[in-house]
Amino acid sequence: MTRVQLNPVGWISQLSQGEVTLLTDTANSELYQTFRNCCLAVLNSGVDEDDAEALFAPYESFEVKLVRRERGVKMELINPPEVAFVDGKLIAGVHEHLFSVLRDLLYMHVKYNGIAECEPSEVRRLSDVTATCITDMVFDMLRHADALVGNDDLNTVVCWGGHSIGTEEYRYTKEVGYQLGLREMNICTGCGPGAMKGPMKGAAIGHAKQRFRKGRYIGISEPSIIAAEPPNAIVNELIIMPDIEKRLEAFVRAAHGIVVFPGGVGTAEELLYILGILMHENNAQHPFPLILTGPAASADYFAAIDRFVAATLGPKAQQKYQIIIDDPREVARSMSLGRQKVEQYRRAVGDAFSFNWSLKVDPIFQHRFEPTHEAMAALPIHRDQPIASLAATLRQAFSGIVAGNIKSSTVAQIKQHGRFELSGDPELMTLIDDLLRSFVAQQRMKLPGSKYEPCYIINV
Amino acid sequence: MTRVQLNPVGWISQLSQGEVTLLTDTANSELYQTFRNCCLAVLNSGVDEDDAEALFAPYESFEVKLVRRERGVKMELINPPEVAFVDGKLIAGVHEHLFSVLRDLLYMHVKYNGIAECEPSEVRRLSDVTATCITDMVFDMLRHADALVGNDDLNTVVCWGGHSIGTEEYRYTKEVGYQLGLREMNICTGCGPGAMKGPMKGAAIGHAKQRFRKGRYIGISEPSIIAAEPPNAIVNELIIMPDIEKRLEAFVRAAHGIVVFPGGVGTAEELLYILGILMHENNAQHPFPLILTGPAASADYFAAIDRFVAATLGPKAQQKYQIIIDDPREVARSMSLGRQKVEQYRRAVGDAFSFNWSLKVDPIFQHRFEPTHEAMAALPIHRDQPIASLAATLRQAFSGIVAGNIKSSTVAQIKQHGRFELSGDPELMTLIDDLLRSFVAQQRMKLPGSKYEPCYIINV
Amino acid sequence: MTRVQLNPVGWISQLSQGEVTLLTDTANSELYQTFRNCCLAVLNSGVDEDDAEALFAPYESFEVKLVRRERGVKMELINPPEVAFVDGKLIAGVHEHLFSVLRDLLYMHVKYNGIAECEPSEVRRLSDVTATCITDMVFDMLRHADALVGNDDLNTVVCWGGHSIGTEEYRYTKEVGYQLGLREMNICTGCGPGAMKGPMKGAAIGHAKQRFRKGRYIGISEPSIIAAEPPNAIVNELIIMPDIEKRLEAFVRAAHGIVVFPGGVGTAEELLYILGILMHENNAQHPFPLILTGPAASADYFAAIDRFVAATLGPKAQQKYQIIIDDPREVARSMSLGRQKVEQYRRAVGDAFSFNWSLKVDPIFQHRFEPTHEAMAALPIHRDQPIASLAATLRQAFSGIVAGNIKSSTVAQIKQHGRFELSGDPELMTLIDDLLRSFVAQQRMKLPGSKYEPCYIINV
Amino acid sequence: MTRVQLNPVGWISQLSQGEVTLLTDTANSELYQTFRNCCLAVLNSGVDEDDAEALFAPYESFEVKLVRRERGVKMELINPPEVAFVDGKLIAGVHEHLFSVLRDLLYMHVKYNGIAECEPSEVRRLSDVTATCITDMVFDMLRHADALVGNDDLNTVVCWGGHSIGTEEYRYTKEVGYQLGLREMNICTGCGPGAMKGPMKGAAIGHAKQRFRKGRYIGISEPSIIAAEPPNAIVNELIIMPDIEKRLEAFVRAAHGIVVFPGGVGTAEELLYILGILMHENNAQHPFPLILTGPAASADYFAAIDRFVAATLGPKAQQKYQIIIDDPREVARSMSLGRQKVEQYRRAVGDAFSFNWSLKVDPIFQHRFEPTHEAMAALPIHRDQPIASLAATLRQAFSGIVAGNIKSSTVAQIKQHGRFELSGDPELMTLIDDLLRSFVAQQRMKLPGSKYEPCYIINV
Repeated sequence: MTRVQLNPVGWISQLSQGEVTLLTDTANSELYQTFRNCCLAVLNSGVDEDDAEALFAPYESFEVKLVRRERGVKMELINPPEVAFVDGKLIAGVHEHLFSVLRDLLYMHVKYNGIAECEPSEVRRLSDVTATCITDMVFDMLRHADALVGNDDLNTVVCWGGHSIGTEEYRYTKEVGYQLGLREMNICTGCGPGAMKGPMKGAAIGHAKQRFRKGRYIGISEPSIIAAEPPNAIVNELIIMPDIEKRLEAFVRAAHGIVVFPGGVGTAEELLYILGILMHENNAQHPFPLILTGPAASADYFAAIDRFVAATLGPKAQQKYQIIIDDPREVARSMSLGRQKVEQYRRAVGDAFSFNWSLKVDPIFQHRFEPTHEAMAALPIHRDQPIASLAATLRQAFSGIVAGNIKSSTVAQIKQHGRFELSGDPELMTLIDDLLRSFVAQQRMKLPGSKYEPCYIINV
Repeated sequence: MTRVQLNPVGWISQLSQGEVTLLTDTANSELYQTFRNCCLAVLNSGVDEDDAEALFAPYESFEVKLVRRERGVKMELINPPEVAFVDGKLIAGVHEHLFSVLRDLLYMHVKYNGIAECEPSEVRRLSDVTATCITDMVFDMLRHADALVGNDDLNTVVCWGGHSIGTEEYRYTKEVGYQLGLREMNICTGCGPGAMKGPMKGAAIGHAKQRFRKGRYIGISEPSIIAAEPPNAIVNELIIMPDIEKRLEAFVRAAHGIVVFPGGVGTAEELLYILGILMHENNAQHPFPLILTGPAASADYFAAIDRFVAATLGPKAQQKYQIIIDDPREVARSMSLGRQKVEQYRRAVGDAFSFNWSLKVDPIFQHRFEPTHEAMAALPIHRDQPIASLAATLRQAFSGIVAGNIKSSTVAQIKQHGRFELSGDPELMTLIDDLLRSFVAQQRMKLPGSKYEPCYIINV
Repeated sequence: MTRVQLNPVGWISQLSQGEVTLLTDTANSELYQTFRNCCLAVLNSGVDEDDAEALFAPYESFEVKLVRRERGVKMELINPPEVAFVDGKLIAGVHEHLFSVLRDLLYMHVKYNGIAECEPSEVRRLSDVTATCITDMVFDMLRHADALVGNDDLNTVVCWGGHSIGTEEYRYTKEVGYQLGLREMNICTGCGPGAMKGPMKGAAIGHAKQRFRKGRYIGISEPSIIAAEPPNAIVNELIIMPDIEKRLEAFVRAAHGIVVFPGGVGTAEELLYILGILMHENNAQHPFPLILTGPAASADYFAAIDRFVAATLGPKAQQKYQIIIDDPREVARSMSLGRQKVEQYRRAVGDAFSFNWSLKVDPIFQHRFEPTHEAMAALPIHRDQPIASLAATLRQAFSGIVAGNIKSSTVAQIKQHGRFELSGDPELMTLIDDLLRSFVAQQRMKLPGSKYEPCYIINV
Repeated sequence: MTRVQLNPVGWISQLSQGEVTLLTDTANSELYQTFRNCCLAVLNSGVDEDDAEALFAPYESFEVKLVRRERGVKMELINPPEVAFVDGKLIAGVHEHLFSVLRDLLYMHVKYNGIAECEPSEVRRLSDVTATCITDMVFDMLRHADALVGNDDLNTVVCWGGHSIGTEEYRYTKEVGYQLGLREMNICTGCGPGAMKGPMKGAAIGHAKQRFRKGRYIGISEPSIIAAEPPNAIVNELIIMPDIEKRLEAFVRAAHGIVVFPGGVGTAEELLYILGILMHENNAQHPFPLILTGPAASADYFAAIDRFVAATLGPKAQQKYQIIIDDPREVARSMSLGRQKVEQYRRAVGDAFSFNWSLKVDPIFQHRFEPTHEAMAALPIHRDQPIASLAATLRQAFSGIVAGNIKSSTVAQIKQHGRFELSGDPELMTLIDDLLRSFVAQQRMKLPGSKYEPCYIINV
């Protein structure tokens, strides 16, 4: 049995006795299971595998313990994966990530599940919390993760895109990251490989050339998805949000601009999320740099996306983004220009630089959507609703498919009850079907090597 | 009208909208009043005045506001006292203290009064919280104030003693501080002038000579007492605890040793508190350096204290401390030796260096004692109880007298209902009476300049 | 006319009036010309061009001036190349390099050309300086460049190899750099592209993952060669040594191990230099990790090098290095093991960690070899001499060819007087001829794009 | 025999073999003796003794050695004075000072005595160096001591005044230092006790309150005087200049203002030095804040000084300074105002903030004055010369008396040849005689405890 003890990193070294107890009750604690699994995911940093079950299978004997020591609480790993070690020593970045997991899980549990440090009584469920409250909570989680103080230079670029992309696309994401890095912008992604790693690698080189020592490579994840997208060790700030909706809100509130690279259904979910928000009438004047970009070979891909947006959300939605093909320098320059507008706007309305309070986000984008078979079947995929609402619905549909692809509990449901069925306006269903088929054909659903088996049926 | 805007310091620059709202509802908010008064106290840094009413009277028009700005929340002072300014610029140390006040009041309110950021509903009172829980809360407050991470070098010396002491005694406290500083020890006191300021000044010079850049001058206060003991600007870590009992527990859990200088009834309260704890049977083997010291002229003073302890708590209590007269170097050396024993003990029992978890503190020392006339009259000042319990009772008696001397709400009660009456075993009452009389005679109750009017009657 | 003013970096901001004068006498100062050309080379950072003339041609109007300002001496660039700018702003790394050039040229001029700050009288030529003295001078230059204080962790790996290498070889150098970086080793090269840039890029990613904030990417150059090998901006410590021999000594004294990648005649020069030194009898027990490595496709290349060494210097020379093919992890591990032996040795003989004083370097390796036609023709390329001496001779022959390839003054000589002629033992000449032919055939002499025209004739 | 090994501090850890040799040849090296004596003086930090012989007598067996170690050159102290140790550990500030001594002595020897690192041949004497050159050298020494980079905030206040002053005067110097510190000004003095220590202590507290982390307490000394005025450990930058004239120039070039406290003949020397310079016609417009200040009890003292200046140098000299009695806050405020004028002037003439290049200093103030009996007797103390020249002469006369008081070699001369004799205009001689008598009467010549025996005869 291998045992590795890790020195604590940062303030998290200091835990109260109540907090340690929460995470050492291994017998029946759901919190412990989540904690253990997130740690395991983090320890698989750099592994290109998006099948959580396959990833976890070899490590059934893996455990993590907290051990009180003179200088704080150490973490003990039992039978950890070897991949995170170099000559027997844990990679420092991964080491940090483990303590980030500890920090965020403990905080969201103690503060937002209503389980106070001492008396785990009155449980307040996240779902009960009102909309304003959710934004405050997203803010509070980011602040607690120390992600806001350094975020007031208006230089955080969120990069979205697939974890499963081709070599050429990957090289391109590095180039864009490099150009952003040369302009002293930071990168925030959802963790994982592909378009979520490339921009960070590129930016790291750009930052080095600019002697930019405050380079941030932020990864925002959530417990049910981190296993499928373990953070690369370049990520130097890992943040775990409670669920996918809070994670998406964290992205848009922390971002000063977003770049969308080619991707699959998850990327489509993200694009629909931001478009749905930007189309809210309160946000009509809100400047939000949003650039879709890829190498020359991806031109068709973006043309298809653009058509899908036009056909579903209409031309107003198209005006919210800019498509730039094969020009990393232009992407970075355009982001620089957009940043100036963001600065003007925030000054004008008195908004914080570090957190986009003034962006209006409707409750439908904030509350947790649990993709059960019933919920998926009941999605109102039709045109009898405001456009933003349709965007929200489509976002939920795609979110469910992502879950069906990679989230272990949803995968289990599918196995038991069969595929999700989606129904609605035939015209919309056809559009969706076409888009999804193209993702499958382009191998964007899952990493190459396995045959993709859809988790859904589109009833056209 | 003078207005001064202060840039935020540290993470506290980042406040959620809910938090700002809590502190801007000036109309009817008790929290705002506490906040405003603590700020006013802090702004009187360096003023030698222990009459809160006198201190506050000239500043009725003083207000403090939070203002959201691009780079965080600024604090706006309206009509602040001039004393905290040098050529029109606020002293940086005082500036920091204002944000420490904001940090601690907000945190204790949001987390421990049960008023969550969004829904100020279910108020959980501190008094309901169980004993273990209080220790966890003391820990949590210190951790949140970032006071624990730097506390693991076993070099925090808590200095207790009077705010009203003579020139010679003051010079002596500086000498002791200097010798402690040369040995790279840090100073923690209750804020205020006299014995709470001298050791810090001395240590600052000692630290400078040793190029000790991590020098900490920690002041731990609480809302009802800070006005009487405003922190000197040398204090570079100001922490506000919820009440006197939590403040005392913070002292003993954070300390690696305690030095007691001459003082008045507050100092006697503190000495009884620590002796009461150290006499608990669970703490029999617990090493805790405790040194009573003063210049040659204070020899009689300590002899009197020593006799009082002998007569009330007995010889076992006397063994818990060491009296050193007129030898600053020996005090520091002795503290160095004590530190080694503390280190051995903490390693042996696996206790944290930064927080003394293993010291047993009985609930009677933890729960808030509200010094009403009834409570004071009902104090069981007799020998029919365990010694530790008697120590606790005496501690409460002295605590009530401190409140009657300087805490504005208690002073108001006295004005309305007359002096507190204390009764009990005649022999004990005589001992107490003698001790208090000597404090009055030596001008240790209040700063010189006013005639001291006792707030109590001792029914011998 | 473009003018850019640069704020000073580091202490170099402070120059005396005498020093400024030295560099502002633009009319007839050789020092100014050298300074200007080195600056121009540095400003071409990242350009893949090894023909100095071609590189400089477009910038005839380029000038650099020193301007005294309140906060120190600024540098003013007139008509600088655009390539070093991002959106009109000079890349920070290049900015730093300009001031490194200023620092080193000024220091070597003032101190080692005997021209004191005030009276430029008694010129002491470098060539007059004795051997011990040269080592002291190499030490002094490195210390002045602040390169020694951070060099005592025994983790500086010097990487030698060609500036003109294939894609696969380049990728491999990045991999090796990454594995070294993961083990917290630093990279030192001769500046320039190819094998001198790849390891730095790889190490930068490895360091990022290890949160290794002291990552050093040291480039050591000299005035006559910097134009052909401008430092990439990743280089975060640029050092200019007086000439090629001092530069080579700086490499071996600062290194804790050397990795040799595939390269051309310059790489061969370097290999012969280190082998010649290691074969000195005083160095027989001196551990010096020396690894020749490349991807699978480079196996033949190293076999040829190995045969050349065997045939010229013999099997003892072969024992001084290890050849590792296609295994970056093994290279790094082997370097780690070697580092332990270096540590043991330095401790045993009481040598500094930061500078390899105890390595014996013969004067023949220290004094400047000026590759004139006469000097080249007179090289004693025969076996009637000790092996170390033959190594020195071969080193000089190859050094001359490098100069004939890329050093502008030597290129001009060749143009005027025809090719260098090398003569000697027919057997040796054949070996040399074969080796050089293979370099030409593999395009290792110059960057692809131009036809290589040899600057030498081998008289077999 | 006690041996203490000290780890190196800063770059000085790195010494070449030549440099180490210079300081280890203990047999016949004058440099070693100077080095050893300066170290001994530094180790007497805090000792109030101005008789070098008395100070050194107990430490005849003291030696200092350089020892090469893996991580740099260590210093080994043999039989050092105990006073610099706390519980057996050398005070960190003193530790730093020893390495400052090493740094400066080595540098001035190697660079300015012409003894290059390798060949100690062509000795260039300081006295041969021209005037411009001396200023460049003063600059170079300060730069090398890293004293200039942090000197560009225009906040260095040089404090001059006696080492032997009364308690009230000492308390006053602390108050002035405190007020300067609150305004974020730094203190530079000549090392030693009294007026050279008080302002630093006060400023340290002011800086602490302002969280001013860059507080500088600079001590500038020279080898022949350091024994009489060992630096207090608060001094965090110790600089050794070659002789008294270079030291005085270092003061005025680095200063942004000067405060003169009560003192003896040394203080008079300093005042005459700065007045002589400020009266140069080229400096007529040069703003230079110069404040003479002391507590109420010192009013007469300054009135006498003022009369002396009026009678010797005339009313124009009086206009160069401001006398402020008993108002520390006003001193600091006045210095703040003066600083603004200094800033305007430096910007206007393009002078450096960190070094006052534009102040004209005549050669007579720069060249070394060796106070032999002949030189003293020959001083032209008469009115047949320009005023500045008379100031220079008087400065030399007082300088000679300082040397006769405390410089060991001069003290020895006096012992052998009798007192210095000073002659000149009877009127001037009377003025001088009166002034010196008042210093003697006020015990300003030497520390109390010994009877002062004049080293001079004034031939009135």
